Amino acid sequence: MQLSLTENNDIILQNRVLVDVDIDPMSRKVYIELEQPSLLNNQADVDRLVDSLRACCGDQVTVPLKMMNKVGEALREGDWRVTATLARFGAVWQVIDIEPGDRMARHYGLAVDLGTTTVVGYLVDLSTGQIMATEADYNGQIQYGMDILTRIYLAGTPGGCKQLQDAVVETLNKIILGLAQKCRVERREISAVTVGANSTMIHLLLGLDPSRICQAPYIPVVNLPGYLKVSDIGLQVNPHAPLYCLPGVGSYVGGDVLGGILASGLHKKPELALFVDIGTNGEMVLGNEEWLMACAGAAGPALEGDVAHDGMRAEPGAVYQVRIDPETKDVNYKTIAGQKAVGICGSGLVDCLAELLLAGIIDRAGKFRSRSREFVVVPAAESATGRDITFTQTDIDNLMRTKGAVNAALETLLEGVGCGLTDITTFYAAGAFGQYLNLESAIIIGLYPDLPREHMIRLGNSSGEGARLVLISDASRREVEKIARSITYFELNAKEEFMNRFVGSKFLPHTNLDYYPTVKQKMMQRGLIQE
Amino acid sequence: MQLSLTENNDIILQNRVLVDVDIDPMSRKVYIELEQPSLLNNQADVDRLVDSLRACCGDQVTVPLKMMNKVGEALREGDWRVTATLARFGAVWQVIDIEPGDRMARHYGLAVDLGTTTVVGYLVDLSTGQIMATEADYNGQIQYGMDILTRIYLAGTPGGCKQLQDAVVETLNKIILGLAQKCRVERREISAVTVGANSTMIHLLLGLDPSRICQAPYIPVVNLPGYLKVSDIGLQVNPHAPLYCLPGVGSYVGGDVLGGILASGLHKKPELALFVDIGTNGEMVLGNEEWLMACAGAAGPALEGDVAHDGMRAEPGAVYQVRIDPETKDVNYKTIAGQKAVGICGSGLVDCLAELLLAGIIDRAGKFRSRSREFVVVPAAESATGRDITFTQTDIDNLMRTKGAVNAALETLLEGVGCGLTDITTFYAAGAFGQYLNLESAIIIGLYPDLPREHMIRLGNSSGEGARLVLISDASRREVEKIARSITYFELNAKEEFMNRFVGSKFLPHTNLDYYPTVKQKMMQRGLIQE
Repeated sequence: MQLSLTENNDIILQNRVLVDVDIDPMSRKVYIELEQPSLLNNQADVDRLVDSLRACCGDQVTVPLKMMNKVGEALREGDWRVTATLARFGAVWQVIDIEPGDRMARHYGLAVDLGTTTVVGYLVDLSTGQIMATEADYNGQIQYGMDILTRIYLAGTPGGCKQLQDAVVETLNKIILGLAQKCRVERREISAVTVGANSTMIHLLLGLDPSRICQAPYIPVVNLPGYLKVSDIGLQVNPHAPLYCLPGVGSYVGGDVLGGILASGLHKKPELALFVDIGTNGEMVLGNEEWLMACAGAAGPALEGDVAHDGMRAEPGAVYQVRIDPETKDVNYKTIAGQKAVGICGSGLVDCLAELLLAGIIDRAGKFRSRSREFVVVPAAESATGRDITFTQTDIDNLMRTKGAVNAALETLLEGVGCGLTDITTFYAAGAFGQYLNLESAIIIGLYPDLPREHMIRLGNSSGEGARLVLISDASRREVEKIARSITYFELNAKEEFMNRFVGSKFLPHTNLDYYPTVKQKMMQRGLIQE
Repeated sequence: MQLSLTENNDIILQNRVLVDVDIDPMSRKVYIELEQPSLLNNQADVDRLVDSLRACCGDQVTVPLKMMNKVGEALREGDWRVTATLARFGAVWQVIDIEPGDRMARHYGLAVDLGTTTVVGYLVDLSTGQIMATEADYNGQIQYGMDILTRIYLAGTPGGCKQLQDAVVETLNKIILGLAQKCRVERREISAVTVGANSTMIHLLLGLDPSRICQAPYIPVVNLPGYLKVSDIGLQVNPHAPLYCLPGVGSYVGGDVLGGILASGLHKKPELALFVDIGTNGEMVLGNEEWLMACAGAAGPALEGDVAHDGMRAEPGAVYQVRIDPETKDVNYKTIAGQKAVGICGSGLVDCLAELLLAGIIDRAGKFRSRSREFVVVPAAESATGRDITFTQTDIDNLMRTKGAVNAALETLLEGVGCGLTDITTFYAAGAFGQYLNLESAIIIGLYPDLPREHMIRLGNSSGEGARLVLISDASRREVEKIARSITYFELNAKEEFMNRFVGSKFLPHTNLDYYPTVKQKMMQRGLIQE
C-alpha cells in the first residue's frame, strides 16, 4: 500500500521545531588511531579498542559478542585507524559498528511516528540533528482492521500478536529502505531508532500482549520499555542498534503524547498550557513547569472521517474545506489534490458543522432549523461519484458527541486541579488532524478553546518530533522519562462527573457561551443570538 | 564419550578452598509483594516490578523484551507476590526470570573449568556459595584433534570455528543436564554461568577466530570479554543468564591461570609466591600483593603422557606411581583403578625419571649409566598388553626438555624482576597434573623448586575454583579483572636469554645443585655425588 496523501502530506510529515537542544545523540561515532600491537604491546584487539573508547565514553563500554571478530578485521584493514559507532543502552555504551578509516561524516538515526493509521519515518543526520528525508506509509496492520480494538482482539487470538507485529515491522522496513535509497545511506549506517506511538501501537510493535489495555483497570504491560534492540523485532538497520520507544503514562496516554509535550516545551514554562491530540482517541495534558496532568477518552471515530455518511480519509478527492455564504447559503469547498469530490474528511466535517451553525442552518443544539435531515455539500453533478455528497443529522450528532466528550474531559481535568477554562494561557494542537483542521472552525464548534490566536500553536507531527528529540539529545531522553514519571494520569472512566458532563456539554460551541467570546460575537453579528 | 577417570577423578574435580568470600553472586533472587493495580494505581506491570526492584538493586534495572509478557502473567498468577531473578551485566541488573510466589530457596549457578582435554562443571547453590554437584567429561572438540594447534588450524577452515564451538557447547549442555538431574534442579533455574579456560578454549567457546593466538605477536581477539549471554552460544540454562569468562592477559596466560591466582589469594599477600600450571603449556605467575608477572611457554606434551614410548592419558591401567629400590633396582608401581598396566601417565613418567636418578641408573645429564637405552617399568608378564612397558632414553630427553623449559622460563622471569630462586616463599601448583604429581619427584627432577614442603600448596582445580569465586562474589569478579589489568605479561618468545637458558638448564635437578638442597642431600646420602 502506497501512501497517497498529497496536498496534506507535507502537513502530516511536518515537525514544528519549538525546542532547541544540544546534539548528544543516542549513538556516537568516534575516530581513533590505535598503537599497533607488538610482542611488547600484546593487548587483545577488543580490549585495545575498548580501552581507547573509554577515554570518550566512560567506564561502561562493551562489545557484543557478534561484533568481536569484526573488530580485529577492521583494525587491520584500517591499519589501526578506525571509526567506532557506539550506542547508548542506559548506563552502557555498546560498540555497534567498527569501520576502517575515518567514517565520522556518516552517522544516521531514524525517528518514527507510529500511528494507528499512518507511519512516518524521519531519517536524521546525527551530526547535525537535522531531518534529511521523510517517508510515510499506511500502517500495514490496517489490513487486519482499521480501528485499534479490532487489532487488540486479533492480538489475543493464536498467532495474532505476531501477525500484527510482522505487519508493522514490514511497514517500517519499507520506510527504512525508502529513506536509505533517497539519501544514499546504507541501512546498517542507521545506528539508533526512536519511536513515538500510543500504548497499543507500542505493544503491537514489540509483540507485547495488549489485551489488558482495554479492560479495567487498563494496565499495559509496560509504559517505560527503555532501551531495547532493533534485532528484537527485526528492523533492518544496524542489527545492534538501540530501539527506544517514548514512554507512556497509561493505556491511553502513550509515547506519542509524551513526545508531543516534549516537543512543545510546555513542561518547562511557568504559564498554564493545554495540549490536545485528537484522533480516534482524544488525549489532553494540562500543566506547566510545576505539574502535569493527563487524561484520555475515546473521542469516537467521528473526526476520522470514515464513519460519516459521506466521510472518507484525508485522501485525494476528499473535501477538506467548506465555506457557506451566510446570505445565499451557497457552498464553497476545496478538495485534496483538487480532484473531483469523493467524500468529506475530518477537517471538512468540522468546517461543515461550524459553517452550518454560523449560517444559521442549524441551532446551537446541532439540530437543523428546517425540517431537513441533511445538507448537500457537493451536488451530484459536481461529484466524482455522481451522487450528492451530504452532511447529515447523524453526522452532526456524532460530531457533537465527540466534541462534547472533549469538553467534558477538559472540564473534569480542570476541576481536578482547581482551575477554570480561562486560566489556560497557551493551547497546543498536536497530530495531523490538529495541523490540518481549520482553527476557527474548531473553536466555533467548541472543540478547541477560544483563546487569543497567537497563543494557539499547532505542533504538526509532535510525536515524530519528540522521537527526533530523544534520538539526537540524551537530555531530551531524560526529560521525557522525567515527564513520564512525574505526570499524573487522570482516569476519566473512574470519574462519575465525567459522564454527567458528557451529557451536559452538547451545545455549540458550549453550554456556557461566555467561555467562547469570539464565537459569541460572531453569532451576535449574524443575528443568530441576542445578548 | 564418558569420562572414565576414576581414582584420580576426585582429584581433578576437587577445588581447594583457600579464599573466603562474602556471598554476592552474579544473580540475585528477590521476593516482592506488590500493590494490586486499580483505576487509581494504574502503573504498567513491568514498570511496577522495576520500580519495586530498584529498592534493592539500584537505578539500573532492566527487563529484556522477551521477559515482558511473562511479567504480567506471573504477577497475576502469584497474586502480586513474585520472586524475580536478576542478573548482573556490568552496571545493569537485568530481570532474567519471574516466578509466582516465593522461590527464594532455588537459586543456582554453574562454574566451569573448560580444559583442552577435560571439562568440569560445578553446580553451585548461590544462596550458600557451596558446590552441590560436579560433572566432568572430555571436551567434545577432542574428536577434531587432541592438541590445541590442530583445533586452531581447523577453526581457520570454512565452518571449522562453528564446528568446534558446537562440540564444546554440546559437552557443556551434557554436563548441565547431568548436574540438573543429579540435584533435581530445572536447567532454567541456573541463572549465571562462569568459565575458566585458556584463551584458545575461550575463543572456540565464543566462536571467535583464534588464528592470531599462535602467530606473532600473539594477539587474541579479546582477553576481557565481560558479561555475555548464554543465549549467544546456546547453553541450556536460563536463556537470559549471563555468561562470564574469567579474563586472560595474553594468548598464553588465560582465564584458567587468572582464576588460579584468584583462588590462591597470592595477589593479596606480602610474600613472593610462584604459581605454576603445567600441562601442554606451562604457565607461571610470580608476584605478591604489589606486583604480578606472568609468562608462558610450550612445555611440550612430554608430561601429558601420550608422546612417551608407552605413555598414555591418566585413565584406568595407567601407571601413575613408580618406586625403584636403590639397592635391588626392583620396581614397585601402582596403576589407576588397580587394573593391569597399559602404559604410563604423566605423573608416572616424572616418578620414573626421579627414581632412575636416585637409584643411580641415570646420571644428572639424564643419560643411562649403562649402555641401556630403556628401563623396564612393567615386565610383559604383568602388563595388560603382553609387552614390556618401558621408559626410554627418548622419553627421558623429552622430559628433560620440558623441565628445562620450565626452569628457563622461571629464571628469565626472576631475572626480569631482579629476584632469585631463593626469594620465593610460597609455591602453588595448579591444575589436575599439579594435583596428581608426586611432589618429591617433581622436586627431584627440578620441575618444582625445592622449598620447605609446608610452603608448597597444591590448588587442585583452581580454574574451576576461580570460576566459582566470581560466580558467587562480585568482589572476586572485580578482583580478577583488577589482576588482569595489573599483571605484566612477559613474552618469553621475545627474550633471547630464554633460548640460551633453555639450552643451559638440562641437568637434573638443575645445573646449579645448590638451588636444590634436599635433592643434593638425598643424592649425597646415596653416594651419587660428593660434596
